[in-house]
Amino acid sequence: MKKKLTVIKVGGKIVEEESSLNSLLTDFAKIDGCKILVHGGGRSATKIASQLGIESKMVNGRRITDAETLKVVTMVYGGLVNKNIVAALQSRGINALGLTGADMNIIQSKKRPAKDVDYGFVGDGENVDTAILTELLEKDIVPVLAPLTHDGKGNMLNTNADTIAGETAKALARDFDVTLIYCFEKKGVLRNETDDDSVIPFITRSDFEAYVNNGVIQGGMIPKLENAFDALEAGVSEVVITLASSINSIEGTRIKK
Amino acid sequence: MKKKLTVIKVGGKIVEEESSLNSLLTDFAKIDGCKILVHGGGRSATKIASQLGIESKMVNGRRITDAETLKVVTMVYGGLVNKNIVAALQSRGINALGLTGADMNIIQSKKRPAKDVDYGFVGDGENVDTAILTELLEKDIVPVLAPLTHDGKGNMLNTNADTIAGETAKALARDFDVTLIYCFEKKGVLRNETDDDSVIPFITRSDFEAYVNNGVIQGGMIPKLENAFDALEAGVSEVVITLASSINSIEGTRIKK
Repeated sequence: MKKKLTVIKVGGKIVEEESSLNSLLTDFAKIDGCKILVHGGGRSATKIASQLGIESKMVNGRRITDAETLKVVTMVYGGLVNKNIVAALQSRGINALGLTGADMNIIQSKKRPAKDVDYGFVGDGENVDTAILTELLEKDIVPVLAPLTHDGKGNMLNTNADTIAGETAKALARDFDVTLIYCFEKKGVLRNETDDDSVIPFITRSDFEAYVNNGVIQGGMIPKLENAFDALEAGVSEVVITLASSINSIEGTRIKK
Repeated sequence: MKKKLTVIKVGGKIVEEESSLNSLLTDFAKIDGCKILVHGGGRSATKIASQLGIESKMVNGRRITDAETLKVVTMVYGGLVNKNIVAALQSRGINALGLTGADMNIIQSKKRPAKDVDYGFVGDGENVDTAILTELLEKDIVPVLAPLTHDGKGNMLNTNADTIAGETAKALARDFDVTLIYCFEKKGVLRNETDDDSVIPFITRSDFEAYVNNGVIQGGMIPKLENAFDALEAGVSEVVITLASSINSIEGTRIKK
């Protein structure tokens, strides 16, 4: 029987407010078995970029990452957010190890080619080294992944945290029984954006397509759900989208093949 | 016979200029056997702090690290400088892993108590986990250490890079034949600050005391040499202070017991 592995992606406002981050980390520390935390940090990056006089340009919800912006996200994701999470987990008895894709070459990717939009130093096509991650997990080390990869040519690449969580979960599904949880400040996928209690408890791919067609599901939730279905197809056992304070319960939206 | 380990501390202007950093990393990649790179980054931290409107206060060459400054050094040392070095080493075929003391709890320290001066979030009394570092080295992984430790209570601590290099070299001297190299933009310890060719080839502790008394050695070189003598006393085989472009040769100043 495969060992259980929980991959949690935490984003949105959760990582950027001390109290919500602390609650999340306390809950995360309680999860039994192997676990990986993947974090975002976009709001902090935007704030620090603005303080440094660097304008944040977003296209389709993705950050245009020129050389100066790459420095900011490398600092904020790889340094500020990642190391504070690692130190906070260590204080909770969790042997955390903060990693970008460059560290031990765990996730190499390719710079997205400029087509209609030049996204700059943004990575796609992640290649996850499962051997090293498996070794760490077997030693009770908890990888904390920043949304950064590298191109193997000396450049860091800004990489979507949902994608990193999805690709990591998929790659490890060969050897582990993987649950992938996307947690954020809402209770799950909502039928009605303005009603926090309108959580859709289950979504299949055909439900998803219908919800996208009728506009119930839109924006950043679309790629998140696409990642979720890809993960299930690739052998991930379960994908859940839920409130950050519900990672230890069975609430939120469950994604079904 | 113990395995050879080279611990290189690179600081000063070297890490902050792309061309000098790249040369150093190319030379570092050529070193045979186990190796660890420890980096500084103070000039970048000062520059980014200033851009963020945070004043850098130094006392005896050490940065006063209040909560805002801690965020800056965590970003700059743990993120910007560390990850760019890691990505650059990966592109040179070196399997680098960027670490702060919080990662896998490799270096825990204690917040320096406020006495005459309150240095803030600054760490002293480093406790280096040699078991994990040894395991990494034996797998041909090259640790790249940022000058940051943690207190085990959730706080990162700004920690002098020379001290981290010295403590790491000392801790690993039980199991490795360790050479500790402090490299920077000068050719070694100079007899005359204004004459780049006045390198002192060997310094013993009694030489050192005489040089401090007559003012030949002063400023930041004093704690660096104290770290060097401590390292030798603790079993480090050799300590060298040299030019960054000379790490593969036998130039510079050799420290003798």
